[in-house]
Amino acid sequence: MNIDLLVHSANQVLTLAGGPQRGQALGELGIVEAGAVAVAAGRILEVGPSRALRERYRAEHEIDAGGMVVLPGFVDPHTHLVWAGDRAAEFEMRVGGASYMEIMAAGGGIRSTVRSTRRASVAQLAAEARPRLASMLAHGTTTAEAKTGYGLELETELRMLQAILQLDQQGPLELAATFLGAHAIPEEYQERSEAYTELVCREMLPGVRAWWQEYANDRPLPFVDVFCEQGAFSLQESRRILQRARELGFPLKIHADEFESLGGTGLAVELGAASADHLVRTPPEDIAALGRADTVAVALPCTPFGLAEAEYTPARAILQAGGLLALATDLNPGTAWCESMQFVIALACRYMRLTPAQAIAAATINAAAAIGRADRIGSLEPGKQADLILLGAPDYRHLGYRFGTNLVRLVIKSGRIVHP
Amino acid sequence: MNIDLLVHSANQVLTLAGGPQRGQALGELGIVEAGAVAVAAGRILEVGPSRALRERYRAEHEIDAGGMVVLPGFVDPHTHLVWAGDRAAEFEMRVGGASYMEIMAAGGGIRSTVRSTRRASVAQLAAEARPRLASMLAHGTTTAEAKTGYGLELETELRMLQAILQLDQQGPLELAATFLGAHAIPEEYQERSEAYTELVCREMLPGVRAWWQEYANDRPLPFVDVFCEQGAFSLQESRRILQRARELGFPLKIHADEFESLGGTGLAVELGAASADHLVRTPPEDIAALGRADTVAVALPCTPFGLAEAEYTPARAILQAGGLLALATDLNPGTAWCESMQFVIALACRYMRLTPAQAIAAATINAAAAIGRADRIGSLEPGKQADLILLGAPDYRHLGYRFGTNLVRLVIKSGRIVHP
Repeated sequence: MNIDLLVHSANQVLTLAGGPQRGQALGELGIVEAGAVAVAAGRILEVGPSRALRERYRAEHEIDAGGMVVLPGFVDPHTHLVWAGDRAAEFEMRVGGASYMEIMAAGGGIRSTVRSTRRASVAQLAAEARPRLASMLAHGTTTAEAKTGYGLELETELRMLQAILQLDQQGPLELAATFLGAHAIPEEYQERSEAYTELVCREMLPGVRAWWQEYANDRPLPFVDVFCEQGAFSLQESRRILQRARELGFPLKIHADEFESLGGTGLAVELGAASADHLVRTPPEDIAALGRADTVAVALPCTPFGLAEAEYTPARAILQAGGLLALATDLNPGTAWCESMQFVIALACRYMRLTPAQAIAAATINAAAAIGRADRIGSLEPGKQADLILLGAPDYRHLGYRFGTNLVRLVIKSGRIVHP
Repeated sequence: MNIDLLVHSANQVLTLAGGPQRGQALGELGIVEAGAVAVAAGRILEVGPSRALRERYRAEHEIDAGGMVVLPGFVDPHTHLVWAGDRAAEFEMRVGGASYMEIMAAGGGIRSTVRSTRRASVAQLAAEARPRLASMLAHGTTTAEAKTGYGLELETELRMLQAILQLDQQGPLELAATFLGAHAIPEEYQERSEAYTELVCREMLPGVRAWWQEYANDRPLPFVDVFCEQGAFSLQESRRILQRARELGFPLKIHADEFESLGGTGLAVELGAASADHLVRTPPEDIAALGRADTVAVALPCTPFGLAEAEYTPARAILQAGGLLALATDLNPGTAWCESMQFVIALACRYMRLTPAQAIAAATINAAAAIGRADRIGSLEPGKQADLILLGAPDYRHLGYRFGTNLVRLVIKSGRIVHP
């Protein structure tokens, strides 16, 4: 049978077959040793022993994956990909010992990014994001979520959404958009978080919906996300925003329990959110709730690492409760400018005590579930999109074991080589 | 004037001029804004304002470093570059909670690497090291130290030395060799560390010296290094080995204070070692001694990171005492398989509280001092070797701020582009 592409002779093919992996079942890689992947029309046709597939198929392109590992492209389900400017000077102040208040007084913090982003055109936003997308792709991420949230006013938030749509259309990396108008209380609403919450509910959410329906070519609505945290949005405000979003038909996400718990994780479960993210200080009852829910717990280990904090998401407790765990970069200009899911895996193995196999599943099939796309990506199964990567290593456990570099040698998106 | 190469229009050129940087003076980058570097016959001719240099020189090759930072190539003064095999399975056991004894019982630990290395030919050792060297180079390291120490018997140790010499000759990355026959007590000398110490002093050191003089084409003798630590070599044994090495004319290094202090740092200072490395548990009196010495303190933050340990080298105390501080990867198959000095800098900023400027100086001019080459490399000054790198970032502080990826876009060694 004639096909488009055969990737063969891999030391290991990790299929991750069987859907999202819950609780202690996390880490089923579905390894095919001496394996091959057959691709036609951008989709996986078959995964199996190299010898059998090489007999069965005649491929227009063949890729010899000898000595390498083949696995699904990483899915990064939590990024703040789009912003203008940088905060390198603030980083230097921080490691020099400056306090949060000193940094704010020097014009730093998220407000600095909001100022530069508000001044940026759609073209500039897309241009600044593009090298980050290229780096993500080079590190094996083939699909990512991308949030707005540095506008904090409808007009800039829509420019961010437009940049995300544009970048998604240009590809090859696919993006799932999230509206995060409730990322922080903007300067002009200081001490008036209720009034800003009102603005989000009354004007921004309907405005985003109307804009999306006009410009997004029948794509499903983006996610709506809220930063539920002391100093950002209270549990009550978060509830108002997410409930309103749900009424308008948006799928939901939440930032919860990064520094302290306000109950955001419970709220996410209650409202059927696709994911609850950060979850560093999540209390036992909310961990138990995750165990009974389809809401995916998304751990973001680059953030405590970026801040040199000692506490990470209690991943093992979430697995023990039976929860669905995923990993993401949290790519952002303040705490975690890191595009590499491989580095996220290295952190998760060390600081969340995941095995390499668990971390890989959390970065592929479960990460796909966190953005509602587990039916289409995140594993190598017949009918799924042919998004796959080749690792320059003989065994999957080199992910995690080795750190700070890039083991990905080749990236294939929908059956086409897109990197290098 | 006609020259070979002009790198011009850089946002910043970091010259690191003025020699190794002691104590609180660490972090003097010698920044030239809108700068250029003129190169002739593989050496730096001049560093200065781009406009002036473009008028003064006519270059055969010009490189536009617009929007980028130019700095000296990184020097990595502590690596275990050469080994055979890997320990990915052991890593999985470790993050799964296995104890050190369980790992040893399963055939893991350094002994596993010694077994595979003893079986490997020089050609195999060089072949396995080459992709690691390529990764180091791609991440901006232009000179590195490389140790033996997985043979623990003269013959294999000499094969490792031979591989290091061969790789150095093949280039483009230059290597400084270190004989670390006293890396661990070999299995066949278990409970007989004194007898092994005797073997090192009586047979191995003279054997290495004789071999080197026959095969190393008049190069200066390699360093001799000892692992002075509970479970490896006692202070007394370390002293015997290093004293004997000094008598034979070898320059010295030491592994000290990684897990507990046996007094190795004081010994290094007393014997005038080029560097004392690790230094996590170094007591105040030894830190004070470093402040008065030319022995460079080499911090290896990838090692506590690799082991997910909380304690790092007390860099600020070393600087306060007036010490010479450098950074290195400690690249090795057990605790730290990481080729990137950029990642070392990101760790040093977060866990050792160095500013990006301090970390950069510790990774260039001071790292050169740790291998006795500060007169030739580590800074961009007239007469020095033209080893320089271009960062894809507008400001040097992006080193440290961004992590887990590679910001180096171009690597120049002795005036020639060697990556990509």
